Amino acid sequence: MQSFKELSAQFEQRFNTRHFPDTPASLYAPAQYILGLGGKRVRPVLCLMGNELFDEIGEDAYHVAIAVELFHNFTLIHDDIMDKAPLRRGMPTVHTQWNEATALLAGDVMMVVAYEYLNKVQHRHLPRIMAVFNQTAMEVCEGQQLDMDLEQMPLEAVKMESYLHMIELKTSVLLAASLKMGALLGGGSVANAQHLYEFGRNIGIAFQIQDDWLDAFGDPEKFGKQPGGDILVNKKTFLLLKAFELCNEAQRQRLKTLLQNNAADKVTSVLEIFHACRVDEWAAQEKEKYARQAMEHLENIAVLSVRKKPLAELADFLLNRQH
Amino acid sequence: MQSFKELSAQFEQRFNTRHFPDTPASLYAPAQYILGLGGKRVRPVLCLMGNELFDEIGEDAYHVAIAVELFHNFTLIHDDIMDKAPLRRGMPTVHTQWNEATALLAGDVMMVVAYEYLNKVQHRHLPRIMAVFNQTAMEVCEGQQLDMDLEQMPLEAVKMESYLHMIELKTSVLLAASLKMGALLGGGSVANAQHLYEFGRNIGIAFQIQDDWLDAFGDPEKFGKQPGGDILVNKKTFLLLKAFELCNEAQRQRLKTLLQNNAADKVTSVLEIFHACRVDEWAAQEKEKYARQAMEHLENIAVLSVRKKPLAELADFLLNRQH
Repeated sequence: MQSFKELSAQFEQRFNTRHFPDTPASLYAPAQYILGLGGKRVRPVLCLMGNELFDEIGEDAYHVAIAVELFHNFTLIHDDIMDKAPLRRGMPTVHTQWNEATALLAGDVMMVVAYEYLNKVQHRHLPRIMAVFNQTAMEVCEGQQLDMDLEQMPLEAVKMESYLHMIELKTSVLLAASLKMGALLGGGSVANAQHLYEFGRNIGIAFQIQDDWLDAFGDPEKFGKQPGGDILVNKKTFLLLKAFELCNEAQRQRLKTLLQNNAADKVTSVLEIFHACRVDEWAAQEKEKYARQAMEHLENIAVLSVRKKPLAELADFLLNRQH
Repeated sequence: MQSFKELSAQFEQRFNTRHFPDTPASLYAPAQYILGLGGKRVRPVLCLMGNELFDEIGEDAYHVAIAVELFHNFTLIHDDIMDKAPLRRGMPTVHTQWNEATALLAGDVMMVVAYEYLNKVQHRHLPRIMAVFNQTAMEVCEGQQLDMDLEQMPLEAVKMESYLHMIELKTSVLLAASLKMGALLGGGSVANAQHLYEFGRNIGIAFQIQDDWLDAFGDPEKFGKQPGGDILVNKKTFLLLKAFELCNEAQRQRLKTLLQNNAADKVTSVLEIFHACRVDEWAAQEKEKYARQAMEHLENIAVLSVRKKPLAELADFLLNRQH
């Protein structure tokens, strides 16, 4: 059994090659460019880990891992266009480096190449893998649309339930599906693969809560940057939505005023309200709840505990990071 | 054996349903909208015709036909964004009716649903169908990129060869692949399916030449609109590129001047040069050349001639239309 770190290095070695034809370079250079920006390659490694939970890692798992990473990068290119984001990983986004039309098309063709990697898996596996992949790809698109829909809504109109659903679709399902596809390719039963899916889905939600928590309450020394970035841009987060739910009328009015202006003490004042209505405690509990659910699903997978160790360690690492 | 018209009606009946989940409507209503704008459904019907060339039309051919039509509409949504086109079939384009972000995402999800239709074909056919579909999808993206690249280039720098290659990728290969996938599903041999592919590819090019010719020289009575639309917007067409190749230096300078301004007599004057350097005759010959090549490939398919009749009639109709 190999750790996330070991598998990440192995995946990177396989992934670090050209995935596209040479010409037209005007289309394929932008596609290759975003892959060169790096990233933690969490999703493909999850596919490999899901595979190794049941068997030695096979070629098929690598094909699907690459497909997943290409799909993920396709969503990044298109999300960056939609969000008009100038930078990704400190580098110009594809549409900034080239233009929107080229970025749009480079994303499109990357999705097609992802399907071509899927098509390399053994024929007997293809229909089942395609079904999981397609379902997930639709959900990821739905998640992005819901995200845009929620952004347009006034804060008080956004239900926690809708936000959670959006996070699930936009973030969690691809993590979950990566694990599940690896499991299915490794010979895991449908029931075991589904437990692994639920493990991934719950970890994904817990991870996002942790992400929101860190941005608000992280130790600047460990976090590596000044907290409050989300607050400054009025980003709808688990914390902000819950604060609106928990706080009293006076706090609610104060929050609204703070969000409408950009006073110098905006971050400090919002954090004060967060503390006052205890969203920090709530977030810690919620994170624990999802983490516990994840671990229960992991426990329910019928393989030797020793095989689960890398996944348990990864969960622990992801959910207890301080940066 | 059924005619294009009969199969078109049959396809429309099957296609005229919801292809997407109900929610989020903000994502799926735009996707469903473009399908409602209609169209001749040429590509899916070609898939059915390719299928019926070898066998009775099966369920699999319908699945692939739907996938092809969804893919085609995905390209329309995204092309309209890239071209900033306000109208399609006289109705607002998706990005005009909603916005660019939603149109982008509606296109993305439509491509995923196309793959989900592919995934409905019998498992034994799936890998081969996917291979043709993916290759073609990549080529269509390449064609759109080449189109944008050529648009940026000065007219005299565009080689006829590059333009032809662009048209092939952007228009012909999907027609060809639709026929080929239908043939493969119908039990056609690889060699026969490839002849059918070449039939479609050549028809596609001939069709585009006819399209360019009609826009310049069409009889307004039959064409239904005033000719010269392409000339007015300086669209690079087979005719304009060839005219630049054939004409003498004086004509070349005159053409350049005409393109730079929008004089009232622009269309008439450009058409005069077209006639003077005989691009109309050249176009008629080129169209014939590709049509002949197409028919040769059709003849080489090892099935009874009677089975080929609907395809021969369709070719005749497409290439001799006056509107």
